[in-house]
Amino acid sequence: MSQDRLSIFALGGMNEIGKNMYAIECNNDIIVIDCGNKFPDESLLGIDLIIPDVSYLLDNKEKVKALIVTHGHEDHIGGIPFFLKKLNVPVYATRFTLGLIELKLKEHKLLDEIELVEINSDSKLDFNDIQASFFKVTHSIPDCLGIVFDTSEGRIVHTGDFKFDLTPANNEHSDIHKMAEIGKEGILLLISESTNAERKGATPSEQMVGAHVDEAFMKAERKVILSTFASNISRVQQVVDAARKTGRKLALLGRSMVNVVEVAMQRGYLQVPEGMIIDQNQINEMAPEKVAILCTGSQGEPMAALARLSTGNFRGVEILPGDTVIFAAGPIPGNERSVTSIVDNLFARGANVIYGSGSSSGMHVSGHGYQEDLKLMITLMKPKYLIPVHGEFRMLHHHRLLAESVGVTEGNTFIMNNGDVVDIEKGIAHQTRKIPVGNTYVDGLGVGDVGDLILRDRKQLSEDGMLVMVLTMSKSERKLVSGPDVISRGFVYTKDSEELQREVNRLIKKTVNDLMEENKYQWNVMKQTLRKTVGQYLFAHTKRKPMILPIIIEI
Amino acid sequence: MSQDRLSIFALGGMNEIGKNMYAIECNNDIIVIDCGNKFPDESLLGIDLIIPDVSYLLDNKEKVKALIVTHGHEDHIGGIPFFLKKLNVPVYATRFTLGLIELKLKEHKLLDEIELVEINSDSKLDFNDIQASFFKVTHSIPDCLGIVFDTSEGRIVHTGDFKFDLTPANNEHSDIHKMAEIGKEGILLLISESTNAERKGATPSEQMVGAHVDEAFMKAERKVILSTFASNISRVQQVVDAARKTGRKLALLGRSMVNVVEVAMQRGYLQVPEGMIIDQNQINEMAPEKVAILCTGSQGEPMAALARLSTGNFRGVEILPGDTVIFAAGPIPGNERSVTSIVDNLFARGANVIYGSGSSSGMHVSGHGYQEDLKLMITLMKPKYLIPVHGEFRMLHHHRLLAESVGVTEGNTFIMNNGDVVDIEKGIAHQTRKIPVGNTYVDGLGVGDVGDLILRDRKQLSEDGMLVMVLTMSKSERKLVSGPDVISRGFVYTKDSEELQREVNRLIKKTVNDLMEENKYQWNVMKQTLRKTVGQYLFAHTKRKPMILPIIIEI
Repeated sequence: MSQDRLSIFALGGMNEIGKNMYAIECNNDIIVIDCGNKFPDESLLGIDLIIPDVSYLLDNKEKVKALIVTHGHEDHIGGIPFFLKKLNVPVYATRFTLGLIELKLKEHKLLDEIELVEINSDSKLDFNDIQASFFKVTHSIPDCLGIVFDTSEGRIVHTGDFKFDLTPANNEHSDIHKMAEIGKEGILLLISESTNAERKGATPSEQMVGAHVDEAFMKAERKVILSTFASNISRVQQVVDAARKTGRKLALLGRSMVNVVEVAMQRGYLQVPEGMIIDQNQINEMAPEKVAILCTGSQGEPMAALARLSTGNFRGVEILPGDTVIFAAGPIPGNERSVTSIVDNLFARGANVIYGSGSSSGMHVSGHGYQEDLKLMITLMKPKYLIPVHGEFRMLHHHRLLAESVGVTEGNTFIMNNGDVVDIEKGIAHQTRKIPVGNTYVDGLGVGDVGDLILRDRKQLSEDGMLVMVLTMSKSERKLVSGPDVISRGFVYTKDSEELQREVNRLIKKTVNDLMEENKYQWNVMKQTLRKTVGQYLFAHTKRKPMILPIIIEI
Repeated sequence: MSQDRLSIFALGGMNEIGKNMYAIECNNDIIVIDCGNKFPDESLLGIDLIIPDVSYLLDNKEKVKALIVTHGHEDHIGGIPFFLKKLNVPVYATRFTLGLIELKLKEHKLLDEIELVEINSDSKLDFNDIQASFFKVTHSIPDCLGIVFDTSEGRIVHTGDFKFDLTPANNEHSDIHKMAEIGKEGILLLISESTNAERKGATPSEQMVGAHVDEAFMKAERKVILSTFASNISRVQQVVDAARKTGRKLALLGRSMVNVVEVAMQRGYLQVPEGMIIDQNQINEMAPEKVAILCTGSQGEPMAALARLSTGNFRGVEILPGDTVIFAAGPIPGNERSVTSIVDNLFARGANVIYGSGSSSGMHVSGHGYQEDLKLMITLMKPKYLIPVHGEFRMLHHHRLLAESVGVTEGNTFIMNNGDVVDIEKGIAHQTRKIPVGNTYVDGLGVGDVGDLILRDRKQLSEDGMLVMVLTMSKSERKLVSGPDVISRGFVYTKDSEELQREVNRLIKKTVNDLMEENKYQWNVMKQTLRKTVGQYLFAHTKRKPMILPIIIEI
């Protein structure tokens, strides 16, 4: 048998926050870790989602033995249905994570076709060339795992997303003793998340939020409306506890809040007193000081419950003067303006609004370890090599500096792009090759059909609109028999620009006649000339560059 | 003569950050304060600028006596050329502010047509029914004024943008003694800015930035590249001082940096040692530890100097490993992602990057007063009434609470929208009427021609593109003689969707034939039916909603 080769690469998650997907390849095994999605920024016009490009895995179908999922956040599970439609492999995840994956598979009508395997931190999986075992980590969703891969080349640990929290809510402790055991002799390679590598100190404990929630519930004289990530069950538990302590019933608003809380209750991750949950129709029947509402929309999503409440557009539920509204989640970068506009609307309704960036209001702590947490993980694992993942470049860069400060040799940290491969042979790691990767865009029912060309067109259309000109030409007589018919959209307001329209019509006719006189009657040449002359004319007179579409009808 | 009436309203600046424009109207006088612009958010597709709608002022032309400008920031002067083109009134401003206004008027070829009147804090202006005098305030640009308006109804003070800074850089002190004198007997109404009404404590001093800049310059072993707002001349002075202390020459990159520094030097607001400023061509001739660069682009603007430096696209100047890059300006809300992407690129080039949100890096302090500053202003002025301006709703709301905490009677603070009018008669203020206001969009050469209709079209085009179908119809024979010719852009990639195209063609033909058979041959009915049937078909098969444009050519 030839020399073993162990390879590690990312299909997503490098130099970005989102669409995490990593893979370990050893001889005939590829094990995939996570398959997330990412939300597009405003430059990706019309795109609904971004998912990893999995073409390398499709080209190596027979090797792919499993998808192991570390936890149930969208940036780790949101791409799963799209991946499984192309490559049906068994999915391994914990009980809670599987609950969320099942919701997705149901939506995509895939539930019956997929092998879902429940694991826990004691599970051991033996693939051919790779063995996997697990350890518990604390994060901002229940039932999170770190993964240990044992191979002939050595031991690799993937941390999943984690923080250390010595006083977590809901007993979501990390397996620190097990982690110490795993790293006792040192490991070959640590793959560790980097989200908060820029933040000094240690992540505050989730219990801090509970104390602030309790205080706000006690002070509130009327309804309390609290918005957080539905999947943050520890935080939901603390809200349930605060409602219990202050004798309030709890209504859930927003589809994902209802679904995820149901999964958590059914699977035993959330303890809710009998009779506490009320239907949204019951809210108005109760005294306002006896009600709390837990809702979606903490990120300012325009269609979510909180945004609709803030504008008075949630049927049957109204925010009234004296109500208390709590944002128990910091805005994710890029969402600040949507959030503050909701805060404005809530204040305008007379609500007492508790909000703030990051943890400044005391109503949010991060689920991702700060610098001291990252250093503790590296110290526990004693890796020879580090691949920082799950972060933009500056985060990966700071993670490298942190690693070097706790003893990882300079040069042994690999800062990689998606698709870069680290190969390990005879205990030595090299980053030399690349596999093909990219972003796959989901737009409506289309997966991967929208590419740069369509996006470029959308951009031009979005900025200056378009102008269609139809010329009906008789080729035999070499002349314009009807038109030009000119229609524009998104360019200028037609009623205010009659002069411009007349001039454009004149210019088109002149251009066509000139070409005919010169015997240039290839339609392509004509179209190209029209695009150029009309485009220049419009730019000179409006400083706008609409898309110009000449259509020639030959009769 | 009838009873005097004093009215106050905003044409911009209420429930928004940007396009500040306020007016005081007393009998036959209207005095306008500031005329700013605002940058569009990503929902205003293709729009370059937003400026105030000044139709009320145009309808009352003869009353408008003056435009007084408090300071030279874009959100206070950016709308001036557009306003003056419609209403040529004298402009009053300080020497530095006039310098920046002149740059704008030159660009718009208006400089010779406008009466520009230089004032200072000792000036007194006597209009007919309104007298104006001034006091110095500290902000983040030189030569800022607050304005005192004396009328038969009483005294009104407009603060301009301000902070209190007892140790300002460049001697930009506030006239605290004069302010105390103005407010000694109490004033009728204070119009005060609200930007930082949510922030506890007092604004840190500008000198704090100087200390951090000095330290960074001393530590830097190679080139230093610092980016800040060009108009923050105090900060520029501190950079000049740090360069002097460390024996560095200084190059200026970016058009606005070059222009504004020139205005500041010519007018005596900036002291630069002889021979310190070098041309950008000289940068590479010097030892890297002997050079500093001051550049635009601290907000992540994609075409500004810093963005181009970060991607290696600034001709002749390169950022090299070991260079120090300093962001000496916090990101304005909405700009965070553009800024961090530049930070990532700079780290990837091996630079040492000093950055951070707000003042966390020590390289930025706000020019807008925090809560203690706002309370001090109210305390100094002792107003009966307060109109908080220059802020989004939550800021105005917090400003009201602050005012009440220092003695303004509940109910005497007016939280207004643009266009709301506060009328004061016999010393009593009422907010009852509204004047027409709105946003005027600048797009290319068009001012106010792009409205909601065009923006709605651009939005649809941006999300799902469009599909044009041309049908050449013979009306006499009631049939399709050519086509349908179908063209789409930004919708689906044509080569991948041949089946869809065939189906759409078939559907169009069928729809047209059906209508003809039913004797429905009005073209409008046909277009409407085609839009509907083709739209439904495409949505069912793609979940996208392109704009559908049927064009009928009748021959």
